[in-house]
Amino acid sequence: MIRAGIVGGTGYAGVELLRLLSQHPEVEPAVITSRGNAGTPVAEMFPNLRGVLDLVFTEPDTGRLAECDVVFFATPNGTAMQSTPELLDRGVRVIDLGADFRIRDVPLWQRWYGMEHTCPELVAEAAYGMPEINRAVIREARLVANPGCYPTCALLAVAPLLAAGAVERDHIVVDAVSGVSGAGRTPKQHTLLCEANENFVAYGTAGHRHHPEIAQGMGELAGAEVGLTFVPHLVPMTRGMHASVYVRLADEAQEAQALFDEHFAGEPFVDVLPAGSNPQTRTVRGTNFCRLAVHPGGAPRTLVVLSVIDNLVKGASGQAVQNMNLMFGLEETAGLTGVAVLP
Amino acid sequence: MIRAGIVGGTGYAGVELLRLLSQHPEVEPAVITSRGNAGTPVAEMFPNLRGVLDLVFTEPDTGRLAECDVVFFATPNGTAMQSTPELLDRGVRVIDLGADFRIRDVPLWQRWYGMEHTCPELVAEAAYGMPEINRAVIREARLVANPGCYPTCALLAVAPLLAAGAVERDHIVVDAVSGVSGAGRTPKQHTLLCEANENFVAYGTAGHRHHPEIAQGMGELAGAEVGLTFVPHLVPMTRGMHASVYVRLADEAQEAQALFDEHFAGEPFVDVLPAGSNPQTRTVRGTNFCRLAVHPGGAPRTLVVLSVIDNLVKGASGQAVQNMNLMFGLEETAGLTGVAVLP
Amino acid sequence: MIRAGIVGGTGYAGVELLRLLSQHPEVEPAVITSRGNAGTPVAEMFPNLRGVLDLVFTEPDTGRLAECDVVFFATPNGTAMQSTPELLDRGVRVIDLGADFRIRDVPLWQRWYGMEHTCPELVAEAAYGMPEINRAVIREARLVANPGCYPTCALLAVAPLLAAGAVERDHIVVDAVSGVSGAGRTPKQHTLLCEANENFVAYGTAGHRHHPEIAQGMGELAGAEVGLTFVPHLVPMTRGMHASVYVRLADEAQEAQALFDEHFAGEPFVDVLPAGSNPQTRTVRGTNFCRLAVHPGGAPRTLVVLSVIDNLVKGASGQAVQNMNLMFGLEETAGLTGVAVLP
Amino acid sequence: MIRAGIVGGTGYAGVELLRLLSQHPEVEPAVITSRGNAGTPVAEMFPNLRGVLDLVFTEPDTGRLAECDVVFFATPNGTAMQSTPELLDRGVRVIDLGADFRIRDVPLWQRWYGMEHTCPELVAEAAYGMPEINRAVIREARLVANPGCYPTCALLAVAPLLAAGAVERDHIVVDAVSGVSGAGRTPKQHTLLCEANENFVAYGTAGHRHHPEIAQGMGELAGAEVGLTFVPHLVPMTRGMHASVYVRLADEAQEAQALFDEHFAGEPFVDVLPAGSNPQTRTVRGTNFCRLAVHPGGAPRTLVVLSVIDNLVKGASGQAVQNMNLMFGLEETAGLTGVAVLP
Repeated sequence: MIRAGIVGGTGYAGVELLRLLSQHPEVEPAVITSRGNAGTPVAEMFPNLRGVLDLVFTEPDTGRLAECDVVFFATPNGTAMQSTPELLDRGVRVIDLGADFRIRDVPLWQRWYGMEHTCPELVAEAAYGMPEINRAVIREARLVANPGCYPTCALLAVAPLLAAGAVERDHIVVDAVSGVSGAGRTPKQHTLLCEANENFVAYGTAGHRHHPEIAQGMGELAGAEVGLTFVPHLVPMTRGMHASVYVRLADEAQEAQALFDEHFAGEPFVDVLPAGSNPQTRTVRGTNFCRLAVHPGGAPRTLVVLSVIDNLVKGASGQAVQNMNLMFGLEETAGLTGVAVLP
Repeated sequence: MIRAGIVGGTGYAGVELLRLLSQHPEVEPAVITSRGNAGTPVAEMFPNLRGVLDLVFTEPDTGRLAECDVVFFATPNGTAMQSTPELLDRGVRVIDLGADFRIRDVPLWQRWYGMEHTCPELVAEAAYGMPEINRAVIREARLVANPGCYPTCALLAVAPLLAAGAVERDHIVVDAVSGVSGAGRTPKQHTLLCEANENFVAYGTAGHRHHPEIAQGMGELAGAEVGLTFVPHLVPMTRGMHASVYVRLADEAQEAQALFDEHFAGEPFVDVLPAGSNPQTRTVRGTNFCRLAVHPGGAPRTLVVLSVIDNLVKGASGQAVQNMNLMFGLEETAGLTGVAVLP
Repeated sequence: MIRAGIVGGTGYAGVELLRLLSQHPEVEPAVITSRGNAGTPVAEMFPNLRGVLDLVFTEPDTGRLAECDVVFFATPNGTAMQSTPELLDRGVRVIDLGADFRIRDVPLWQRWYGMEHTCPELVAEAAYGMPEINRAVIREARLVANPGCYPTCALLAVAPLLAAGAVERDHIVVDAVSGVSGAGRTPKQHTLLCEANENFVAYGTAGHRHHPEIAQGMGELAGAEVGLTFVPHLVPMTRGMHASVYVRLADEAQEAQALFDEHFAGEPFVDVLPAGSNPQTRTVRGTNFCRLAVHPGGAPRTLVVLSVIDNLVKGASGQAVQNMNLMFGLEETAGLTGVAVLP
Repeated sequence: MIRAGIVGGTGYAGVELLRLLSQHPEVEPAVITSRGNAGTPVAEMFPNLRGVLDLVFTEPDTGRLAECDVVFFATPNGTAMQSTPELLDRGVRVIDLGADFRIRDVPLWQRWYGMEHTCPELVAEAAYGMPEINRAVIREARLVANPGCYPTCALLAVAPLLAAGAVERDHIVVDAVSGVSGAGRTPKQHTLLCEANENFVAYGTAGHRHHPEIAQGMGELAGAEVGLTFVPHLVPMTRGMHASVYVRLADEAQEAQALFDEHFAGEPFVDVLPAGSNPQTRTVRGTNFCRLAVHPGGAPRTLVVLSVIDNLVKGASGQAVQNMNLMFGLEETAGLTGVAVLP
């Protein structure tokens, strides 16, 4: 059994990781830390885990974490980089669900995240943890930067197009929505039920931290810089993310459906829907799937790609488990075979 | 008092019209018809009107309707055109909340709506009922084609830009969402709470009937045909519509905020938000307001316009009342001064 | 025009009071205070009031408040009692939406609210502000204790029965639910959308502060102490309160429907539904109505009374305006004639 | 592998059964019938099953069903009784998720369900499928009447009390709420999102079909007839059921917590919460658990029991699988070990 540690398990990515790891056939959740809740049984905070998980939150302690095979950081940005060097030195593999190792351009990261990076040399080493794009590198990695939710949803939507050079790179529009769980479990006014319910609103219009991450990913796929407009919106539901991506085809005659079918053939967690379909977020809720559909736009040479994920699973904890499976040579789908509860 | 008749008052546009007219200082709701519910008190079907409105649904009867000063059609497409000629002949003004008179190109209308038009000559006469674009014509009209909800939300978002020739016309993207009430009160599977709740999904991707209406409106504003991609989505809430419109500026230096501020100065129902704002659908719920905000996009020369309305008010019944006010020389805001209930 | 001051207008009762007063024909909202938000325009915090209300939050200042005719306290418990004596001395009438003056038994109040009362003599003077029970006293009052939401919903449900001595007093069950807005606008974990949405849970089972208030009200109606079991629950919606009250009739033959019809005949805000009906919370949303229905229970001599209100209107700010109307000799329904927006 | 057939798999109990059986280690879903959807792949109707289940709906055909080891009926009431005799004759075991075999008193059943029973002799034979009450009988049964959702939720809440003779039997109040999925997948007006959302309403107040089933179950537990008042309510969420049960203790000194702890010790799917807890419906969503809590009521000798289940799992399909496991000598929890997705 792989011994897993979780740092910062009291948020939504944390509880989702606990749910997934507690049902994983080859993993034992061994340590879970929380500065504020040491001593509290996990199942008291998250009663869905009553009878399933017996762990108790403990104070963060690198010594105990170092006894794990892998440590997941489900912490605010800037936390993972503090302990990662020591854990790697002691032979532990690290998967950071935060943003500390996602942006290759460290000064750019520092601008967006408003802090100095304490181990920039590890940024270069870290594997960007999107298996559909980067599987071989992840298998060999000691350190994985687990992608953000919007980047996951958006990059899967354009990967076949950018890899094929099929679209104009200077005017890509990603219009995306996220369920409220993306904003976390810390109480804030705008995520109260009474504020977010029966409401729809854009946010991050002045610049969202996932913009440079998506642009970096698109640039790597395209082999050149892209012009990206990204507007996220908050949708009154708990889970789910949907991106509607608008691109202009370089060539009217592109067979987009075939391009997507071929590109993702064999991917265990990407489901390209038949032509004419519209992916629903609820069909991936609680699962690691991304469902995609392509449609011609109403204007000439415009293509619309629709992409859905569960922001907490393929957009966070599920993808982290998928990465762990690759890093440890397990079946890539191990622990990730649950079916969405519908309705 | 203006005597108002309503044909087809059992849907959501109908009940909203009843709510607005029952509180209008200069209107008396005099007749309300429903083929299937004749004899039923309105307040029995819509208990929010208990003690407010004493009307009883009656069988459709052009004779009784002809005693009204104005008749509103809140009926399925194709119904209003049956009775409108006779009502106009008898001196009644008509406001059609359906689509029968919205599209100038009758063959195009017939293709999208799958039926033959029975009075194409009236299509030419009908005023397109968006006061912010067409106020003078509406004042003189006998027949008003009340705009669709998506066209209202989208056209207000681009009117200043297209009127000023500020954007490239060949690649306009309207990404819009609607609350579920837009799909009506007739039971359908996809609008059940258990299907629509906690879900987000695009629809009409193969072609939505509001596409030609938006394209027509944009074309008139721009003075030339536009290339429009329009993708509507269903959002898990009852009311509210949000459009995120993506355009490319013809000229990098456009001062979009000032353009919008000036264009809509003095409009009683259009509220251009200060720079940096994001309009929330809930702030217009139950009201006739459109709130707008403009933002630079992340890609060069890209502009994002955000627009919110209540799909049943400014997107249907409220705009119909606004049109009636203009047609009868009343204060344009009469009966439309309610404040959104928040939260 | 009556000049109204509001202390603590940044919560949900506050914004609702602002909405109602800004539309009241005989009131001018003159002062609104907030310690933390002085200088902020009200319409910036509550954009539904953009263009409707021009006020700016100011620091609490008894001098400025004393220039008002009436001051509403929409503050945490224990705040109103600090300034009320001085305001009354200066001839201002006071309506406290909090609990400071609701419980006649001051030691009991002190136990439940965990603080010492600073003006117990005013508790004796204060009128309990439920017009349907206490109208004459309210008309003459300088100080009104506006009832809690659960007490309003529950007492209206049993008033006819207790007044008639029709039920056994020792075993009254009030099973009630509240929309999440009852828990306020201050961010707390359990009222986040992600926690409260798609969930139903009882709370306050160890003892809720509205228990003594309901028991006091029932006792006064019955003329003797009652045995009350009260269990509130949180329901995943923003507004609305529903009580299902279970009582045993003293006498099998009671004609409960007639008792209710007669008892509330002429009440402007109590709507007794026809036999067989079930009141829906949404039909009173944003309004000052209470809708009631009575049903025989399945067990012998058991009666079920169903009662709905909007917790922020009849359960808070609307009832406060109704009380103000009575205190100033205005039409009781002034400013309270809006119709629920449905759906 | 056990070959399972499902009759009527297009409703919510049906898709839930498909989800559970498709993940059951010892079951093969072999046949699924639907009169209206023969030929449609299951995963086309329920896209959460894409890639998981390859079945296609077929016409109902007793011959094909007879090749199964067990047949589940997830059909409207009155359907299962048509084919059950033949299936039993051919050696197939039958689990009816409908009500055909739940009520021992056939004339009473006929009154409530408005039809004649076609095989009353099998009513006597059928095992009432609540393992916590009836495990030994279920193990030996050919035919199981799977309980209704409200009866499951209510009977588990009172079983320890009635079995111990601890409460007065003549005045039991069950106040219960159900998520909207309990009303099924067939489009109806009152279950539209726009009707059910942001609303709370009682229903079935004139008499709900689960009343006689709950009363029968309570009577068997108590060994004598009970006086039951049962009021169900619709709560604006998809899944989940909560019962608040109010009883009077025969004897003030009852130790209710201990009674519950002992009664349900060792039950795999009943979780008695620690004193002071309130069970949340979301903690059992998608799972077969019932969570219970007991509280003293505010009136003397009153006890409140709170009980939550997922209406589609423990209240329908999950309990059916639990019954199947018992009937076939499998591990009782097989296929039912999933953890609730939270949030």
